[in-house]
Amino acid sequence: MRKVRVHNLNISLDGYSAGGSVTYEKPIGDAGRLFGYFDGRVIDGVQHVDDPITADRIFTSAWGQGIGAEIMGRRKFGPQTGPWGDDDWRGWWGDEPPFKTPVIVLTHHEREPIAFANGTVFHFVDAGPAQALAFADELAGGRDIRLGGGPTSVREFLQADLVDFLHLVTIPVVIGSGVSIWDGCAELQDRFDIESVTTGRGLTHQFWNRKR
Amino acid sequence: MRKVRVHNLNISLDGYSAGGSVTYEKPIGDAGRLFGYFDGRVIDGVQHVDDPITADRIFTSAWGQGIGAEIMGRRKFGPQTGPWGDDDWRGWWGDEPPFKTPVIVLTHHEREPIAFANGTVFHFVDAGPAQALAFADELAGGRDIRLGGGPTSVREFLQADLVDFLHLVTIPVVIGSGVSIWDGCAELQDRFDIESVTTGRGLTHQFWNRKR
Repeated sequence: MRKVRVHNLNISLDGYSAGGSVTYEKPIGDAGRLFGYFDGRVIDGVQHVDDPITADRIFTSAWGQGIGAEIMGRRKFGPQTGPWGDDDWRGWWGDEPPFKTPVIVLTHHEREPIAFANGTVFHFVDAGPAQALAFADELAGGRDIRLGGGPTSVREFLQADLVDFLHLVTIPVVIGSGVSIWDGCAELQDRFDIESVTTGRGLTHQFWNRKR
Repeated sequence: MRKVRVHNLNISLDGYSAGGSVTYEKPIGDAGRLFGYFDGRVIDGVQHVDDPITADRIFTSAWGQGIGAEIMGRRKFGPQTGPWGDDDWRGWWGDEPPFKTPVIVLTHHEREPIAFANGTVFHFVDAGPAQALAFADELAGGRDIRLGGGPTSVREFLQADLVDFLHLVTIPVVIGSGVSIWDGCAELQDRFDIESVTTGRGLTHQFWNRKR
C-alpha cells in the first residue's frame, strides 16, 4: 500500500524545525543552524556523495526511494505571501530542482504549473490535507507521497492522521524560537512504533512507522 | 572518483561471514543464522519494503545506489566446484537476479556469459583482483563497483588494498566455525575511518571509508 512519508525533518533540541521569519536571504528563517548539519547532496543516493559514505548520508538517501510526488507548504517554495507577483520566481532551486516528480505547493493563491526539464512540475493548489493527498495520488502513479515540509504543513497532516512514516533527525543545536511539528500533537507517539538510532556525528534519527 | 564498495557483509560475533560447507540446500554453508536477520527484499530501496521502514532496511538499501557492476566469488554463484557440468545452473536467483548490472564471477573455469532480461549478465572470468576490477570498470560505465562476496573474495581485495568502502553488519549470533574476512588482514583498520551505529534490533553497522 502506498505510504505518506516524511524524510529528513530536522528538529532542534528545543523542538523547532524552522525559524520564525523567512526572507529571500534566509529560506528557513532564523534556523540556518539546523541545516548546517544537513548534507543535501545525498538525496539522490550515495552515488552523488562526496567521501565519506556515512550513516547520516545513507539515511538521507532514502528521501527519494519509491516517491511519486511531493506535497510542500508554500513557504518552502518561496518567501512571498499573498497574491503572486510578476517576479518570475521559480523556487529556490534554480534550473535543477531536486524533486524530479510532480510537486504540489499548498497555497491559497492558485496559479499555472511550472515545469522543469528534469521532471519536476510545481502545481499550486488551494486544498486541505486530504484533498491535496488525493491529487498527489493522481500524479504519483501508485508510488509513495513525500511530505516535504515545512513543519506547519507536516503538522497539519499529522493532526489529520494522514502520515504513515516519519524520519526525524534531532540536531544538537538550540534555536530559541520557531515553528514546531509538535504543537497540538499530544499523544502522537501512541499511533506509531518508534526506532531511534544515534550516528557517529551525534545526530539522533528517529523512524516512526504508523501502527497497523 | 569511482569506488569499490562492499555492502551488507554480515559477520557473526565470532567473526565469520560464511559457514564451512556450501551445498545446493545450504547456499551459505552452515551460517544460515547469519542471514536470518537479513531482509533481502530491501536491496531495491524502501519502495519495495514491507512495513516498517527501519534503520536496518535503509542501510541495506544503499546496496544498489550508483553501482555499475558487481564482482563475486564463484561460491556465491553456485555450489559446484571444478569444471562446469551440463546442469543448466543459472545461479541461485531464478529468472530475476537482483543485480540488474553486469556481474563478474571469479572462477578458474571460464565459460560463456549468461544474460537475463532484467539487465543481469554473468561473466565468468579467471582473474586476480586487479585484473577483475579493470574488467568491471569496462562494464560499469563509470559507476561504482560492488564486491558481492563471499568473504574469501572480499578478503583478497582487502589484502590487495583495492577496497574503498566497507559496510559490515555484526549480527548477534555465534557460528563456531567458517570463513572470515579478517584472516591475514591485521592492522587493516589503520587504512580506514570507521563509524559504528547500533540499530533498534541490536545489529551493529560499521561504515569503513578508506582514508584519502
